[in-house]
Amino acid sequence: MPDSAKRAALTRRSLLVGIGAAGGAGAMYAAMGVLGLAPSPATDPVPRTGGAPGPAPYVPPGRSDFTLRGGRPAKVLVLGAGVAGLACAYELGKAGYDCLVIEARDRVGGRSLTLRGGDTVTELSPGQAGTADGVAGRTGASPGGPATPSPGPSTGEPRLVRFGPGTYFNAGPARIAQWMVTLDYCRELGVPLEVFVNSNASAYVFTSGMTAPVRMRTARADAYGYVSELLAKATDAGALDARLTPADQELLLDFLSDFGEIGPALTYTGGDRRGYRVDPGLKAGTELGRPPELAEVLSRGLGRMLTMDAGYEQAMPMFQPVGGMDAIVRALADRVGAARIRTGTRVTRITDRAGGVEVEIDGGAPLTADYCVAALPPHVMARVPANLGADVRSALATPIPMAAGKLGLEYGRRWWELEDRVYGGATETDLDIGHIWYPSHDYHTERGLIVGYYNTGPHAEAYDAMPHRERVRRALTHGARVHGARYRKDLLGAVSIAWRRQPHIEGAWVRWPSTSGQSLLQRPAGRVYFAGDWLTHLIAWQAGALESARKVVTDLHHRVLKEG
Amino acid sequence: MPDSAKRAALTRRSLLVGIGAAGGAGAMYAAMGVLGLAPSPATDPVPRTGGAPGPAPYVPPGRSDFTLRGGRPAKVLVLGAGVAGLACAYELGKAGYDCLVIEARDRVGGRSLTLRGGDTVTELSPGQAGTADGVAGRTGASPGGPATPSPGPSTGEPRLVRFGPGTYFNAGPARIAQWMVTLDYCRELGVPLEVFVNSNASAYVFTSGMTAPVRMRTARADAYGYVSELLAKATDAGALDARLTPADQELLLDFLSDFGEIGPALTYTGGDRRGYRVDPGLKAGTELGRPPELAEVLSRGLGRMLTMDAGYEQAMPMFQPVGGMDAIVRALADRVGAARIRTGTRVTRITDRAGGVEVEIDGGAPLTADYCVAALPPHVMARVPANLGADVRSALATPIPMAAGKLGLEYGRRWWELEDRVYGGATETDLDIGHIWYPSHDYHTERGLIVGYYNTGPHAEAYDAMPHRERVRRALTHGARVHGARYRKDLLGAVSIAWRRQPHIEGAWVRWPSTSGQSLLQRPAGRVYFAGDWLTHLIAWQAGALESARKVVTDLHHRVLKEG
Repeated sequence: MPDSAKRAALTRRSLLVGIGAAGGAGAMYAAMGVLGLAPSPATDPVPRTGGAPGPAPYVPPGRSDFTLRGGRPAKVLVLGAGVAGLACAYELGKAGYDCLVIEARDRVGGRSLTLRGGDTVTELSPGQAGTADGVAGRTGASPGGPATPSPGPSTGEPRLVRFGPGTYFNAGPARIAQWMVTLDYCRELGVPLEVFVNSNASAYVFTSGMTAPVRMRTARADAYGYVSELLAKATDAGALDARLTPADQELLLDFLSDFGEIGPALTYTGGDRRGYRVDPGLKAGTELGRPPELAEVLSRGLGRMLTMDAGYEQAMPMFQPVGGMDAIVRALADRVGAARIRTGTRVTRITDRAGGVEVEIDGGAPLTADYCVAALPPHVMARVPANLGADVRSALATPIPMAAGKLGLEYGRRWWELEDRVYGGATETDLDIGHIWYPSHDYHTERGLIVGYYNTGPHAEAYDAMPHRERVRRALTHGARVHGARYRKDLLGAVSIAWRRQPHIEGAWVRWPSTSGQSLLQRPAGRVYFAGDWLTHLIAWQAGALESARKVVTDLHHRVLKEG
Repeated sequence: MPDSAKRAALTRRSLLVGIGAAGGAGAMYAAMGVLGLAPSPATDPVPRTGGAPGPAPYVPPGRSDFTLRGGRPAKVLVLGAGVAGLACAYELGKAGYDCLVIEARDRVGGRSLTLRGGDTVTELSPGQAGTADGVAGRTGASPGGPATPSPGPSTGEPRLVRFGPGTYFNAGPARIAQWMVTLDYCRELGVPLEVFVNSNASAYVFTSGMTAPVRMRTARADAYGYVSELLAKATDAGALDARLTPADQELLLDFLSDFGEIGPALTYTGGDRRGYRVDPGLKAGTELGRPPELAEVLSRGLGRMLTMDAGYEQAMPMFQPVGGMDAIVRALADRVGAARIRTGTRVTRITDRAGGVEVEIDGGAPLTADYCVAALPPHVMARVPANLGADVRSALATPIPMAAGKLGLEYGRRWWELEDRVYGGATETDLDIGHIWYPSHDYHTERGLIVGYYNTGPHAEAYDAMPHRERVRRALTHGARVHGARYRKDLLGAVSIAWRRQPHIEGAWVRWPSTSGQSLLQRPAGRVYFAGDWLTHLIAWQAGALESARKVVTDLHHRVLKEG
């Protein structure tokens, strides 16, 4: 998630009060304890040093639960084979639940989409996406939706991905923080990990007011240097006498001396951390030159770019599955079993009955089950006719699907490693491309894939509206402002994605304009449960989908055990 | 290199004036151009954005050089199969030089030592190492050395390394910066890379004044928060009116607001970056609690620990070869060929003659060659009888071997990942263990190796003097102050190394107390050249050894071409 989205998410968090308050993990945990389902040592929450990061305590359902209590695993229809839906089926399967996952798209994974050579990308036509039934018309906070089945907007021609062997593009999620439950699933599923370089001191920052990009390390050293100089001199001039004892002022000056490399004169003139024009080697390094003046550093407006990786969701190190993010959803789908997943199957109606749920689908007889988990995006689910009540429909229609886009640029030569000495990480810009990401894997191989833009908000909306060719043209023009002519050289191919134009997904993630209706969807509507990142405080992260799935599985299993 | 060593290196750099000034890379490059040996596109120095990091321009010798100029490749004896010696033989081999590498130890690699199950570690006896001929007696700046052959200090019992399959311990160098030439050798030799996590926001900082460790992210957020608050309030109170325009003050406050998460009240009360007591998930995250008071934050004395990874040699991302650092020296040795490397062979005398060099060895007939490259540590080379003159001997005896030690602790369970959610990186302490490193590879596997100490200076000297068992005991006691009782649980085995006690190496790296004699050793003494990190501004880095090797190879090749 980009910094801008992260900040929006923080705002969302403060809005999302009360989620999990009713029947949350604590209550669940206590109930499981009563049933003799104490957590295994592997998941036992051990007292941890410096806070207890990591997922909420979770006890997966098990077959022995029924031995202890009687009863039998129920039949469950899971709607949507994204991360949340697959995780539900996988977890319920541990206790022998009879699950069937229905997916409208022709592949599993939902937004966890890794594209390789031979894949196709299909987008909703811009005209179609702009209709009241489509996506663009729904980015306002308009509640409700049609009560009749929608055929869904029509799509444009599929674009063939022409990447070479070994090249992949994580078009959706691409990085995992250490504390997120996603890593636990990687461990459990045997998905090997490697570091995703989320921040690289050798990559660049570039704002439109700058004439040339500056390396992150240089920009950071200059900012920290001047902050230290200003505070050290203010301290020296007595400005902090009322606040700090002389001894504490000394400690502060000690800290600033190192933090800003300002030396005993308390003046910033640059230092080792800026980097070199010619690196140290046989000779001492040649300095880059004098740092820019304080006023110039301030005018760059780089603040947020320099602290992006300080965020709790963004701090280094982050991780990625080796070979592509979809390793996680493929492993989940493997465990669920191909026979329990039906792709290319659209849900046209959901009917909740006293003894079960009926789900009508395109091109097949209606399906029935004891329970249903709706793991569709809320704005898509809101269009499916269902007898779940006006409140549920209104709540589903509340979250606003947000735009985000990404562009994968495959190059035949890793010039960023060879010439810029940039191994992974991101260049941060204030251009409409947002970031440029360099690959964090297969270093030193021939080909490599750069993410030419990863943007959100109005920038993403602008790219959404463009045809693919125009997106590439624009991104290359902006990228060349950072990297010069080499940005167009050795380019082999490009794949773009506009998440609001992805069939059956129609949004990168959602924003809740108000908390209205959220707690309602945390609870089942009759025999229909809802799951997804959009119901958690980890919107736009796979971890949100996984935490939500665990909650639904726990609630559903508990109910089955109780109701026999 | 630890932060303390890095700072010492910076000081050394300013001392090392003039290195490479005589006949350096520039002159070499011009000469090669005249010979029609223009650099290939792969090594051509392309104008780079934001400085031109990376190794000095280098043109490897090639067989065609002799075709153009006549003459023939010479016969070269290389003394020492460390990184510098192997790189010399490898590079000279590209032009068909007839090289033979003589190594006193029973394995190649020198300080680039990766230990695995079945290896043994032999140390010089503390008593022996303390003799005038040994190591401890040489840590003073005493110049000169014995002019008679030394049998070398005797050794203690070899300790068997009992690690399980897959576990390895980089007892010497362990990380590579993006700009260092070491990465170029990894590319050229086909050594696959992965990220070495040199800094982890989730790892800890701990100083002896603290009652409990604090996560790096938390300590950093608190320090940055208070710095921002103090400077913002000083600005607000007019303390910067003479320095900054009102508009620039606004820009500064904007920056500080984000940098310190201080909000519009300009007061630090903590924020997202500190981390959580309970992570965000279904519910919003539970905060860690109020940040400590400013005075407490200042009293921790964490400054240097928080900025360790800002250094030019330490910034993230850093890299390591997959499977162990010795992949590089093994690849070099492979290219040189086993037939050209004689391990277990000690040099006892070097005689420079008008037409060649004679090298006497233990247990064999004297060897002769056209040239010799002495790639031994200077303090070891200084003990080898040679007719290179008193100035050379005195210069070789000038650098002081420094102490550094490391401890590898193999655990049967990766509790730091499972319980602390720490994936790689380092905990920084002011205890005599220095750092605790967590493994940056094979995440989520069963076993893992923690570096229980990596210390230098007086701390390393203290551990040097201890028997292995005592080193382990002490490191576990200190580590338990950070990690509690779990630090002793699941421990399978431990391997320690004291670099001053390593036979034929006798030091982690060197410190030059004065520049006297350095430029002398940059030039050959007759037909004897000197190579090693100790002759560069990258002391203690493999990159220094490699840059030095390239310089020697270039000089030697140029001479051979010129003299025919």
